[in-house]
Amino acid sequence: MKRRPVMPWQAWTRGYDRATLARDLVAAVIVTVMLIPQSLAYAALAGLPPQVGLYASIAPLVLYAMLGSSRVLAVGPVAVVSLMTATAIGDLAVAGSSAYGTLAITLAFLSGAMLLLMGVLRLGFLANFLSHPVISGFITASALLIAAGQLKVILGIRVEGHTAFELLMGLLSHAADTHGLTAALGLSTVAFLLWARRGVKPLLMRAGLGPRLADGGSRAAPVLGIAVTAALTWAGDWPAQGVRIVGTVPQGLPPFTLPSWDLTVWQPLLLPALLISVVGFVESVSVGQTLAAKRRQRIVPDRELVALGAGNLGAAFTGGFPVTGGFARSVVNFDAGAQTPAAGLFTAAGILLAALLLTPALYYVPQATLSATIVVAVLSLVDWRILRSTWAYSRADFSAVVVTLGTTLAAGVEAGLLAGVALSLALYLYKTSRPHIAEVGLVPGTEHFRNVLRHAVRVSPGLVSLRVDESLYFANARVLEDRINDLVASRPQLQHVVLQCSAINDIDASALESLEAIDHRLRDAGLRLHLSEVKGPVMDRLQATGFLQHLSGKVYLSHFQAVTELAPAMAVATD
Amino acid sequence: MKRRPVMPWQAWTRGYDRATLARDLVAAVIVTVMLIPQSLAYAALAGLPPQVGLYASIAPLVLYAMLGSSRVLAVGPVAVVSLMTATAIGDLAVAGSSAYGTLAITLAFLSGAMLLLMGVLRLGFLANFLSHPVISGFITASALLIAAGQLKVILGIRVEGHTAFELLMGLLSHAADTHGLTAALGLSTVAFLLWARRGVKPLLMRAGLGPRLADGGSRAAPVLGIAVTAALTWAGDWPAQGVRIVGTVPQGLPPFTLPSWDLTVWQPLLLPALLISVVGFVESVSVGQTLAAKRRQRIVPDRELVALGAGNLGAAFTGGFPVTGGFARSVVNFDAGAQTPAAGLFTAAGILLAALLLTPALYYVPQATLSATIVVAVLSLVDWRILRSTWAYSRADFSAVVVTLGTTLAAGVEAGLLAGVALSLALYLYKTSRPHIAEVGLVPGTEHFRNVLRHAVRVSPGLVSLRVDESLYFANARVLEDRINDLVASRPQLQHVVLQCSAINDIDASALESLEAIDHRLRDAGLRLHLSEVKGPVMDRLQATGFLQHLSGKVYLSHFQAVTELAPAMAVATD
Repeated sequence: MKRRPVMPWQAWTRGYDRATLARDLVAAVIVTVMLIPQSLAYAALAGLPPQVGLYASIAPLVLYAMLGSSRVLAVGPVAVVSLMTATAIGDLAVAGSSAYGTLAITLAFLSGAMLLLMGVLRLGFLANFLSHPVISGFITASALLIAAGQLKVILGIRVEGHTAFELLMGLLSHAADTHGLTAALGLSTVAFLLWARRGVKPLLMRAGLGPRLADGGSRAAPVLGIAVTAALTWAGDWPAQGVRIVGTVPQGLPPFTLPSWDLTVWQPLLLPALLISVVGFVESVSVGQTLAAKRRQRIVPDRELVALGAGNLGAAFTGGFPVTGGFARSVVNFDAGAQTPAAGLFTAAGILLAALLLTPALYYVPQATLSATIVVAVLSLVDWRILRSTWAYSRADFSAVVVTLGTTLAAGVEAGLLAGVALSLALYLYKTSRPHIAEVGLVPGTEHFRNVLRHAVRVSPGLVSLRVDESLYFANARVLEDRINDLVASRPQLQHVVLQCSAINDIDASALESLEAIDHRLRDAGLRLHLSEVKGPVMDRLQATGFLQHLSGKVYLSHFQAVTELAPAMAVATD
Repeated sequence: MKRRPVMPWQAWTRGYDRATLARDLVAAVIVTVMLIPQSLAYAALAGLPPQVGLYASIAPLVLYAMLGSSRVLAVGPVAVVSLMTATAIGDLAVAGSSAYGTLAITLAFLSGAMLLLMGVLRLGFLANFLSHPVISGFITASALLIAAGQLKVILGIRVEGHTAFELLMGLLSHAADTHGLTAALGLSTVAFLLWARRGVKPLLMRAGLGPRLADGGSRAAPVLGIAVTAALTWAGDWPAQGVRIVGTVPQGLPPFTLPSWDLTVWQPLLLPALLISVVGFVESVSVGQTLAAKRRQRIVPDRELVALGAGNLGAAFTGGFPVTGGFARSVVNFDAGAQTPAAGLFTAAGILLAALLLTPALYYVPQATLSATIVVAVLSLVDWRILRSTWAYSRADFSAVVVTLGTTLAAGVEAGLLAGVALSLALYLYKTSRPHIAEVGLVPGTEHFRNVLRHAVRVSPGLVSLRVDESLYFANARVLEDRINDLVASRPQLQHVVLQCSAINDIDASALESLEAIDHRLRDAGLRLHLSEVKGPVMDRLQATGFLQHLSGKVYLSHFQAVTELAPAMAVATD
């Protein structure tokens, strides 16, 4: 028997050897090179200074490595959460102001506290209410919103707005203000990065590198793009011609910061923090599970909540903003051969070095280059196939995609998510509120009962057999009442109603009340209600009430038994 | 074959004979005598002048009789809807003002329009989302609120407030202001009415009346109470001593009135109108169904919506306020022998006569007497047994009762209803989001599979069989993912995962995505996923996707077949 580790990291620190160290180090170098431009870019997307992106990639990485259950998940700023951050605080303060920074820190703090609380209270199941169609529609719409928002930076024009409509109208009405040099720089960076996604790896392999190193090298394309455009901008003195650059980035350790403790500041941030927490958790866990399964490892969702919560608290106290597990960087970490969370610790160290030493080199980086990095990164999130696949599979799921996507584009990320969740819950409740109730008859020569509409079965004018294909609860109990009322009113010879309960997993108090009402009404009309094939747990609960004692009819173990006793002529196989 | 009637009333006007007329007339007289004091009292409860109660009992009765599907339902002002009316408009205008009357009319109009729309769009199923525990808790709390509110009139003190706390504090702090004569009058009327509910019928039967007439006579007790207290008040000149009386009630036909067409007036009334519509509809249909079943007749819920909608529109255009089918009056109508909706028409005529001729006689009726009528009527709505019965049956249902009851008392009728509906939906979703997933094994010597935790069954280290006892949808799909991830991580010898799908009625797009993710992860880890006993409709939909083509394993018709092929050693009964 293995001893169960007391602290999460004991699962991998024991038996950590030189070979593992080497693999973790290589992975860390590759991920660090990838994360530096991404961190700067996502900070800009959230409306924050670039160094904040670096800060948010240090403490969260360390805390997740120590507490998380995935061995390869890389935590830090990601595109969708950065957009949600910008939306949440964009209307409350001016981007770039110190109030804005404090709001971002407070948002990370609230989100971290909520995640931690959900982990401790084991509320991770709440994330399950974000259905796959809602998430797909939301991510696609968010990616489009992000790309549209970055386009203005790439074109060098100024546009305000959170919705697709506002952004589009802004871009169109200011198209004439396009800054030629910025646009040329930005668009060619986009083109280069798009090419680099597929073009660099074969090139490096032809140059003699192994596939893993070549893959790692291709991750350096954004860094190369940044270096080249920064060099060109410096050499050509382009800032003087209106190309906007990153400028001075403070050098040094992440600062110690505190969130606002003012409840009036918290109030508008609570809903966004909850949505950021849930979206971040869902994305992070699904990445973690996909990668863990490849090595037969496991993810503990409640521990993920705690680890992501700690990561966000870490971001809040070190000058960061909301973070979560990123898809691309985790896959790169995995593919580059990371074996343990130590790779995350080394990555954090690499980014810390960048924050300490590299920031002066960022002075001449054009903002359009960072935006190009974002656009290329988020375009891979756009998934149009979900529309076709859900349309083919289920109209309910399709409408959830369309409503989430449309509402997110038209009214922003928060409205989009809420509309999607509300619609998918409403559609599910609607479906269960209309259960399939089949009138069944006896298949001649057998003891089986089948739907009278689909099979040639024997029935009796004095007895009706109904099979309900759903648990009975308040939203569908009256459907059964209505069905039986109609049957009784339309069949004057009817004497017995028998409910075949084989598909009923549960009967709630409303449905019990309905069954009692049905029984009373049948008795008043001179009929009797019987049950057959009641499941054990349902029977146990019915027996705790007076229902079975007062029932006008009987409970039969099998439906065939009920019919044999109540309508003997029907059970005899005469034909 | 009977010809289907074109207009609702053709079902009963054909073959209408003298005997039916006689029974309908007797029932109408008894119901009219019962309705006059109730109509006055419920108008007062809604904060409206007494004649409005009479008006609201004329046009709605006629319209329901012509359109409704119940033969005996009596429509008019009822206690709970009157309380909801007072709550909805009490904060918007001063009771007794003409603005207040217009708001009541507008509320009836909006409620009528909503009911009509729900009927035309067949949205009656929405009412099913009011679970029985929520309705019980709501009605009991409303009855307590009404009784507490009337107590101030009976004691002759003035108290404002909509919540139990406000009313109670008001009564306690003003207890010293109790008007002795009013209190004596009110409390003795309450005592008389409580006694009359059981005491009058035997008395009349001993005096030689038949049981039906004696029962009818006992319904006149409130009228007797009103007549006697009015006579005493007149004789003793009690108004001069501070006993508050009804005063001048205008004589004449119901006026023609129009609702407000101002959208800013509508806005605060929309939610109350919706709640009034749904509560009124639920109460009305349940009374109608109970009575219809006794004579093997049927209620058509969508036609009830149209008829109640027309009734409320009728109330709006004739100076009334929101109405619905009343429980007590409908039962009395039924018991008194009403055969057809003509009884409702005759009752309307009786109340019209009262509005034309009787109103001067109401001058000296003490308000405390009307309040006593209300208190005695609503006390029969209080149902404490629901607490005990739901506690015994299901904690979820019990908590829905407690939360609805408590919130209604503490925060008012609207908050109470909404909290109850939200909680019962949340509890249902929570329950379905944690499906029962059993690991099953083979019962030796049979082809049956049972839960490994409960039965001595055969299993295999290389194969795991899981049975999911719930349809798979977005809220529970990840539970299955987690379960399978854990199994794979903890059983190194595992080769095959077989899902027994016999209890799965549906798989939505999220659950399909989960199954695909499970399949990919199992394949990545060198395992295979198989399905068995997939239901026909589920299979049809899976076949429309690529899932079955890409599935790492196979689909088996029976679970036994799957196990025989995948783990032959297990299926051989060696022990």
